[in-house]
Amino acid sequence: MTYNLLKGKKGIIFGALDEKSIAWKVAEKSFEEGALFTLTNTPTAMRFGQIDELARKCKAEIIPADATSVADLENLVTKSMEILGGQVDFILHSIGMSLNVRKKRVYNDLDYNFFAKTLDISALSFHKLLQTCYKLDAISEWGSVVALSYIAAQRTLYGYNDMADAKSLLESISRSFGYIYGRERRIRVNTISQSPTRTTAGSGVKGIDGLMDFTERMSPLGNASAEECANFTIVMFSDLSKKVTMQNIYHDGGFSSMGMSLKAMKMYNRSLDCEDCPPVD
Amino acid sequence: MTYNLLKGKKGIIFGALDEKSIAWKVAEKSFEEGALFTLTNTPTAMRFGQIDELARKCKAEIIPADATSVADLENLVTKSMEILGGQVDFILHSIGMSLNVRKKRVYNDLDYNFFAKTLDISALSFHKLLQTCYKLDAISEWGSVVALSYIAAQRTLYGYNDMADAKSLLESISRSFGYIYGRERRIRVNTISQSPTRTTAGSGVKGIDGLMDFTERMSPLGNASAEECANFTIVMFSDLSKKVTMQNIYHDGGFSSMGMSLKAMKMYNRSLDCEDCPPVD
Amino acid sequence: MTYNLLKGKKGIIFGALDEKSIAWKVAEKSFEEGALFTLTNTPTAMRFGQIDELARKCKAEIIPADATSVADLENLVTKSMEILGGQVDFILHSIGMSLNVRKKRVYNDLDYNFFAKTLDISALSFHKLLQTCYKLDAISEWGSVVALSYIAAQRTLYGYNDMADAKSLLESISRSFGYIYGRERRIRVNTISQSPTRTTAGSGVKGIDGLMDFTERMSPLGNASAEECANFTIVMFSDLSKKVTMQNIYHDGGFSSMGMSLKAMKMYNRSLDCEDCPPVD
Amino acid sequence: MTYNLLKGKKGIIFGALDEKSIAWKVAEKSFEEGALFTLTNTPTAMRFGQIDELARKCKAEIIPADATSVADLENLVTKSMEILGGQVDFILHSIGMSLNVRKKRVYNDLDYNFFAKTLDISALSFHKLLQTCYKLDAISEWGSVVALSYIAAQRTLYGYNDMADAKSLLESISRSFGYIYGRERRIRVNTISQSPTRTTAGSGVKGIDGLMDFTERMSPLGNASAEECANFTIVMFSDLSKKVTMQNIYHDGGFSSMGMSLKAMKMYNRSLDCEDCPPVD
Repeated sequence: MTYNLLKGKKGIIFGALDEKSIAWKVAEKSFEEGALFTLTNTPTAMRFGQIDELARKCKAEIIPADATSVADLENLVTKSMEILGGQVDFILHSIGMSLNVRKKRVYNDLDYNFFAKTLDISALSFHKLLQTCYKLDAISEWGSVVALSYIAAQRTLYGYNDMADAKSLLESISRSFGYIYGRERRIRVNTISQSPTRTTAGSGVKGIDGLMDFTERMSPLGNASAEECANFTIVMFSDLSKKVTMQNIYHDGGFSSMGMSLKAMKMYNRSLDCEDCPPVD
Repeated sequence: MTYNLLKGKKGIIFGALDEKSIAWKVAEKSFEEGALFTLTNTPTAMRFGQIDELARKCKAEIIPADATSVADLENLVTKSMEILGGQVDFILHSIGMSLNVRKKRVYNDLDYNFFAKTLDISALSFHKLLQTCYKLDAISEWGSVVALSYIAAQRTLYGYNDMADAKSLLESISRSFGYIYGRERRIRVNTISQSPTRTTAGSGVKGIDGLMDFTERMSPLGNASAEECANFTIVMFSDLSKKVTMQNIYHDGGFSSMGMSLKAMKMYNRSLDCEDCPPVD
Repeated sequence: MTYNLLKGKKGIIFGALDEKSIAWKVAEKSFEEGALFTLTNTPTAMRFGQIDELARKCKAEIIPADATSVADLENLVTKSMEILGGQVDFILHSIGMSLNVRKKRVYNDLDYNFFAKTLDISALSFHKLLQTCYKLDAISEWGSVVALSYIAAQRTLYGYNDMADAKSLLESISRSFGYIYGRERRIRVNTISQSPTRTTAGSGVKGIDGLMDFTERMSPLGNASAEECANFTIVMFSDLSKKVTMQNIYHDGGFSSMGMSLKAMKMYNRSLDCEDCPPVD
Repeated sequence: MTYNLLKGKKGIIFGALDEKSIAWKVAEKSFEEGALFTLTNTPTAMRFGQIDELARKCKAEIIPADATSVADLENLVTKSMEILGGQVDFILHSIGMSLNVRKKRVYNDLDYNFFAKTLDISALSFHKLLQTCYKLDAISEWGSVVALSYIAAQRTLYGYNDMADAKSLLESISRSFGYIYGRERRIRVNTISQSPTRTTAGSGVKGIDGLMDFTERMSPLGNASAEECANFTIVMFSDLSKKVTMQNIYHDGGFSSMGMSLKAMKMYNRSLDCEDCPPVD
């Protein structure tokens, strides 16, 4: 089912790696809904992913960029405008990485170079992108920028580590720049706080299986899939959400508003009632 | 611009009074987007409003109902299903009224019969509606229910009086029933927290003009209009927001995320700097 | 350890039933910290509880009152001022009851008379108390009013039923009246959102044991006890928290800021890993 | 009035510059309440401030430290334990600085070296402090750590610039480390979100006078002073708040829960009504 929601709109999509990526699904849906866009990712990610396939499918050009490099972003934005023939109407930021997580540095033993890098890649890159676009006047009036976030920005999940802090910073940057962009250019900036998603990147998070079972049972509608997230992202790009800005919207099957569900409690209680199970400290 | 977002969908829309009503705009948009629906309001509201005109325009039947009466709601829901030929896919609840506000009873001198009535009309009616629909199995799987709310549910605005408490209660009911409906029937329930809007109902709020100037200057995108609110409501009814539930989404031009804007501060400072202005206590 | 934090202060304490009550602990601590106060509860609660014992211990008089009756509240407040020799400095509201919970009416099959009663007893009683005190000018400048709440006001917990809505309403009333009382009389009004607590009232909540195990493992500091809650309440009554108002403060060992803890996840995962356990839907 | 709330407790206080500093007031109060502590600030701040005077008054030793240097923090914490004779019971983090603000780089023209520095000084320093203490086992069981924050972490205030993002990050670090510290050592970590305060540091913020008039009129109890903030900080250090952790508590006279007050509206409306005032865009 398509609606032509993005007919004639142009955009830039960060972070598509492979078909499990939310950004991949956003690209597919954007294309189906009538948009033209460029795709971007880091040179490394491009080597390991299948972004070429996506580009073919969506008739999109790929412009490699390290999102922490202002020069790369300038190149990306300038080229995108050339290719697309003018200002863009939407941008998706779906970028996050923590070397502390990868190198198994726990939160009370962080490497501070890694921590700075986590913040730079996962949050400051968003500011750099917005500032670059601002200076190049690259986004059209009533344009829409979305970054993907996670509830760890508000509530601590063991193992999510310094990515939680990066997501908080990301959401703050979204608000801060959303104010400027709204006031000066009538452009909106929001974050979508998505359910834990079994993407190639998301799989790195410690204990993701147990967590996803828990959030599935806690969320009245179950975890939101990458595809469903893409649907909602399209809505945020469309002209139907023009006055929503500086918001963090939970797209999570209701998880964020739950204290305890019957289904999760049943699973938990089974452990409590289990006499033969191994002890838990 | 229309998208067929609600093609084939059926609904019930509460609260359209005249063309300034948000519910009126929602009805118009829903019709344009391909939906069929019934309209409802209290007999009194129907006498003073122009709902007949809307009904003609949208090919909708009108079924009067006092939303605090379970019997009336049962009649409304049953008839709607008959008329529309089955379960509904969306419902808009846009109902609020405070006799304390009308009769100028300030918050430290409330009449408790009026207070109970404020809650019954503005909040409990939503539970009654949801419970009635639940018992009649009146909403289809993946259906969507939206109630209109206001930021007074979170932050006190002088003069908004016991309506603030009613909106808090409304949002809580939305979460509580959203859990049940999500778990049992895969139906979502959300509130949209809209900018102050110069509807016929909204005009009754004390000092609405000064407040709307303030929120206009505070909100980076300005106040959201009734029509823009209708656009976003359509999105929440559509299949593109299936996994958003139990949320209160601010549709307010960014107001809710602002502490102080340059524009509002300038206006405020002009008063501070004014030497000839009358004294302010 | 005592500090004379409430030396010379006078108060009214609602809701002490037996020694498990939070209000009971607040009374004990208040007495130890130098306060004089009256105790109140409903005639029924007084018959079943041991409030006489508490009164003797704290040299407090008991004044029965139905907190939903303005006449009873007027009598209570007037008599308290007579007994204590003037305005009071602090009030604790610790009242909540749902007939829907007691009669096992689930949330999608509520009795609306019961629902109205839940709201009246658990939330409107707080407004009635504050309005009565306001009219009688019964609270001293810089006085402090605290009501006990629960996180169900923000996040749905299955089985907590219409009490969740009542707590939302309670917290809203606290904000709304906190504005008036702050502006007019420099009096603060706050709610404390306490961990689930095994009081005689709290025990009625469905599945309280499993829930308390879960919250114990989710909260980095474990569940907060009634006594610890009393300690924090004393602080909120003292002169050291003069500028905190209209807030809902979580006193919950960190639960409200957790998404998932290692300890809770281990217990949950044990169930996931259990092959011999009975099936869970 | 003193209560011996911190009798026998030991601590470390960051950020006292001169007698307008909140940290200065916290040091004075902590001393009055029976605590022993060390004072620390950057070598530069020490040159310009009057910390020597405070140290004499409070019988405290001063240990200079650049809070972004782990080596300096290790030295500070180790020496503090030597001087105080063991683990500390409380720590105050009151540190913030933005070169972007100082150099008048607006938010859409940030210098990224400055931005990284803002985050390092104002937020990462808190993680470095906590991690250093963790590794040195420097905080006693049931100890308490407080960092000072500001509502800009949640809501954008024009001119507050990248400090808003730093405060968001600070609050996230407080939650993230609060989880670890709570779970492993029963130590609590919180932030206090204080009213705008006319400290020497706070004065640098753009348009502080108009803003403080606005927040004074918006807050039902008026802005909270540095001294009042110190009182509440003492409470958070004391044994009476043991189960409060991972929280951000607003100490702001109610500002955070206000949408619009009568007093602020009057001042604003005076500008609206002024016919002779200069035009405002």
